[in-house]
Amino acid sequence: MQAAGDNEKVLALTGEVGARRKANYDILPLLLNRWSPRAMTAEPLGDEELFPLFEAARWAPSSYNAQLWRFIIARRQNRELFDKFVGLLVPANQVWAKDAAVLVVVVSRKFFEHNDKPSVTHTFDAGAAWENLALEATRRGLVAHGMQGFDYERARTELGVPEAFEVHAMIAIGKRGIKEKLPEKVRVMEEPNGRRPLREILFEGAFGQQIPHLP
Amino acid sequence: MQAAGDNEKVLALTGEVGARRKANYDILPLLLNRWSPRAMTAEPLGDEELFPLFEAARWAPSSYNAQLWRFIIARRQNRELFDKFVGLLVPANQVWAKDAAVLVVVVSRKFFEHNDKPSVTHTFDAGAAWENLALEATRRGLVAHGMQGFDYERARTELGVPEAFEVHAMIAIGKRGIKEKLPEKVRVMEEPNGRRPLREILFEGAFGQQIPHLP
Repeated sequence: MQAAGDNEKVLALTGEVGARRKANYDILPLLLNRWSPRAMTAEPLGDEELFPLFEAARWAPSSYNAQLWRFIIARRQNRELFDKFVGLLVPANQVWAKDAAVLVVVVSRKFFEHNDKPSVTHTFDAGAAWENLALEATRRGLVAHGMQGFDYERARTELGVPEAFEVHAMIAIGKRGIKEKLPEKVRVMEEPNGRRPLREILFEGAFGQQIPHLP
Repeated sequence: MQAAGDNEKVLALTGEVGARRKANYDILPLLLNRWSPRAMTAEPLGDEELFPLFEAARWAPSSYNAQLWRFIIARRQNRELFDKFVGLLVPANQVWAKDAAVLVVVVSRKFFEHNDKPSVTHTFDAGAAWENLALEATRRGLVAHGMQGFDYERARTELGVPEAFEVHAMIAIGKRGIKEKLPEKVRVMEEPNGRRPLREILFEGAFGQQIPHLP
């Protein structure tokens, strides 16, 4: 079961990305094609459209293969629940994320399950799982937009997240909509953003030690 | 400049993965093909082989597009430096990671640069960048193996990591070697590992609330 147009999305740049992003080295185009649109259609997603995104997350790497990440979702088919999740978001996110198909709260266990010792990498590993989810969404032409603009403490208490778990982020997932329907304030941001140069994030030998001739 | 055999790696399962991993839903095969081998050839990597992995990391998503991740590398072409990084690892990692081409320490800034306020997601975002790196390595047939088995405090002091930054993980990158050359203790682990079922990581509405009929 191959998603329609799959190969193009993985192996070629989309037009909107090609116009605004340029990689210094050849990388998988899917990595460049992933960005964070806000415009969504308010249509629901079926199980066969949604669950593969979490299947992708499932295969991420984690220290000791502990897989301490957990995802709590609300689908718009259950309107009461969906609205509860929308209510966790700051108003600036509510205005567009209300048109998502699914809202997600990402958490991870702070301690290994086999010995209850602290996991040093549970958050880092959850971030890897999130990126897999985002890439699989991109491959399928879906929006997956990560957010920190929500009430972390209310998310914990209202969704019954145990103390042993940390709340990391929320994600809005949905079908891509047209930007003309967005409120003006976010409409002007509806395009792929850039990145700082490689030389600012890659050092050799010691922190801050730049590599000559790096773009 | 397309890596040789690129399409197959992205769009088809490798044999060793196909024999041991099965996805419940159709996902990009590259996500399943990524695993964490230990056997490497001790050959160096050229700039054109290495830098694209960090280019991939560069395009990961982050809250406010803050890109707080930083990577500090040691290449085996600089033997003194490389050995210093090997010396940060626990002995159980040294026995195989000494044959890497490059060792990496991943850190991220705990505070936004524009206002020095705490970033809630800097570790989570660094994990997303790491996954991009790992996927690009897989696409190129290279090993990228994440590790928490090293001395975090010595990494900080010996590499001059400022207090404002947190040390997350190390990564061994290199050309794939044959497992027969690994010490027996790690040789028996040299195959793609599995994952817990989707129903254990995906909940609906509240923490622990399982979704019926999920694999």
